[in-house]
Amino acid sequence: MSFVVTPQSMQFEGPLALRSGASISHYTLAYETYGRLNADRSNAVLVCHALNASHHVAGVYADQPKSEGWWDNMIGPGKPVDTDRFFVIGINNLGSCFGSTGPMHDNPATGRAYGADFPVVTVEDWVAAQAALLDALGIERLAAVMGGSLGGMQALSWTLQYPHRVQHAVVVASAPSLTAQNIAFNEVARRAIVTDPDFNGGHFYEQGVIPRRGLRIARMIGHITYQSDDVMNEKFGRALRSAVEGSAANTEFLYSTQEVEFQIESYLRYNGDKFSEYFDANTYLLITRALDYFDPARDFGGDLRAALAQASAKFLLVSFSTDWRFSPARSREIVKALLDNRRNVSYAEIDAPHGHDAFLLDDARYMSVVRSYFERIAATFEGAAQ
Amino acid sequence: MSFVVTPQSMQFEGPLALRSGASISHYTLAYETYGRLNADRSNAVLVCHALNASHHVAGVYADQPKSEGWWDNMIGPGKPVDTDRFFVIGINNLGSCFGSTGPMHDNPATGRAYGADFPVVTVEDWVAAQAALLDALGIERLAAVMGGSLGGMQALSWTLQYPHRVQHAVVVASAPSLTAQNIAFNEVARRAIVTDPDFNGGHFYEQGVIPRRGLRIARMIGHITYQSDDVMNEKFGRALRSAVEGSAANTEFLYSTQEVEFQIESYLRYNGDKFSEYFDANTYLLITRALDYFDPARDFGGDLRAALAQASAKFLLVSFSTDWRFSPARSREIVKALLDNRRNVSYAEIDAPHGHDAFLLDDARYMSVVRSYFERIAATFEGAAQ
Repeated sequence: MSFVVTPQSMQFEGPLALRSGASISHYTLAYETYGRLNADRSNAVLVCHALNASHHVAGVYADQPKSEGWWDNMIGPGKPVDTDRFFVIGINNLGSCFGSTGPMHDNPATGRAYGADFPVVTVEDWVAAQAALLDALGIERLAAVMGGSLGGMQALSWTLQYPHRVQHAVVVASAPSLTAQNIAFNEVARRAIVTDPDFNGGHFYEQGVIPRRGLRIARMIGHITYQSDDVMNEKFGRALRSAVEGSAANTEFLYSTQEVEFQIESYLRYNGDKFSEYFDANTYLLITRALDYFDPARDFGGDLRAALAQASAKFLLVSFSTDWRFSPARSREIVKALLDNRRNVSYAEIDAPHGHDAFLLDDARYMSVVRSYFERIAATFEGAAQ
Repeated sequence: MSFVVTPQSMQFEGPLALRSGASISHYTLAYETYGRLNADRSNAVLVCHALNASHHVAGVYADQPKSEGWWDNMIGPGKPVDTDRFFVIGINNLGSCFGSTGPMHDNPATGRAYGADFPVVTVEDWVAAQAALLDALGIERLAAVMGGSLGGMQALSWTLQYPHRVQHAVVVASAPSLTAQNIAFNEVARRAIVTDPDFNGGHFYEQGVIPRRGLRIARMIGHITYQSDDVMNEKFGRALRSAVEGSAANTEFLYSTQEVEFQIESYLRYNGDKFSEYFDANTYLLITRALDYFDPARDFGGDLRAALAQASAKFLLVSFSTDWRFSPARSREIVKALLDNRRNVSYAEIDAPHGHDAFLLDDARYMSVVRSYFERIAATFEGAAQ
């Protein structure tokens, strides 16, 4: 069992100005911290989350032994990001459904749930809200900001929005923007949710319904894109559902278009069902849109080199060979743009079979790269403190 | 404009025994023919269609100049499959919604539309029905059977079910079976259709509704998997919808989760909408399931070499470098299994950017490979006829 942690939250009056021109007032940010902030406040690491994660990055909640945080293999006492040396902050983004203010919370302007009226938030807005939390915690400068996938985009954006507040950025399995295919998958998922009759234009809370059909489809699509073709073949292949149910004798086709025939179908349906029970539909729309919008090169005529000239942090980038959602080529774009700016960049392309999911999984080489990088960071402030 | 063609149809009493154990009686097969059958009936080419195509393979219908068949670039007078030399037959498969008996037709046993009660059909069943049509047309042996994607699976199955009736098989952008990822995409599409409240358990015709929401999602997913990531980036990239609407001035984000923001979204929505107007939901379920089931190695303990030992035809296989739905590696599995059986195989791996869609598109090298192959076939019977 991992170490026990307690979620916290902080209220903000705002208003927080958003990229869209809208603003948000009276909002809450949920967060967790692990380890201790040192005397000169130089050992703080901010961890940014991806699509369906939260501020619960590591550890377990009291009396819930199986409640490990989503990066518990990476962060904790003695782990690659060692909480005996670093003060780690996990934060839940605005618009989420896990504690920070989101679409299911009351809009103070109307007294009713925001629903589809929750303002569209961007990666830049999240980073601005994270900066406000750090201000409140009295942390001026981060030893590191890190994240995988959408979390990596936030880490990258930190180095552009607050270059002097970030010493190191660790950007894992990420991209400088989505491709057309990435946007396409997001759009199909959004259309499945929005066209579900129970979506009710995003104001389904007051109707007492949930657009579960759409959420299920969205999650099924997500699961396909998180995994490599090879891993799916290895895990499920063309095995029939009988193997799932433990009845090895049944190896005949059912000849049905609607019943589960193959194991991969059971897997997808199970995960779709589970997701639809805990994830908020409006949050799904907001977060996939934040992914679509992220594109720091956009303000520089598409020139990523020019965009990244603003960054002064040192970087570690990590990608995974079989990740077809955010392929290594996308990480290499960031590496090249940083090198063109003569920035200090380490890059590891890990040969891992698991596709995009690899960033959440144990892989000895991956863990060892991150461990070494954070040991180097720790040496800088531990040396200074001596 | 292409040459003018007329669709035909033939009634069969049956019963046709299906792989599932069910059978179908009193069914119609829609077909078209191009060119002339020669005196010794040795120049017939059967063309099998893929997911959303039909018997209308080439030519145009009278007074509909834009009604070219789906492989009109490949088949016709002077084309790679030259209808001045070959007698080409296009056939619509059982369960389709384009003319042959399908779920929207009346079940003679009940007098009501089959709907979801239409029997599950397999690639093998389609081939058996095609053979019955050839019997009726007096064609004992095919100069060639050809198809792309699911059509290629039918061509391959012909060589196993009726080895002595097939001289050549042309299998384009196909696979010996679906991968887990292929099945997964089919399953998401099916769940989108089946969980659409307008599906009504597959008996929506009598309700006067159509599960359009599900069909739209199914088609959007399909479109993503038919194209390569590179072609999508080239065609759409991250361009905003403004360019679609011709207003180049509007380059600002709308900051909306539901409105069209990117061109790729317009494209997907447009194609989803169009598809939902003409394609039958029950047909979509049947055809994707036929894809899932196809696996000739299954009866041989997964040994494709043993399965293909039944084939005696000569083969041309073609794959496309950027096809990630049916990748070249899958075609190579077929090539290897045939070579292990010392069969006569030609194989072309075409370096084309268009993904799976490439099999329908003009590509000089692709067209030239097929043209040469069919010239060799024509030489055999034209020589014999002299």
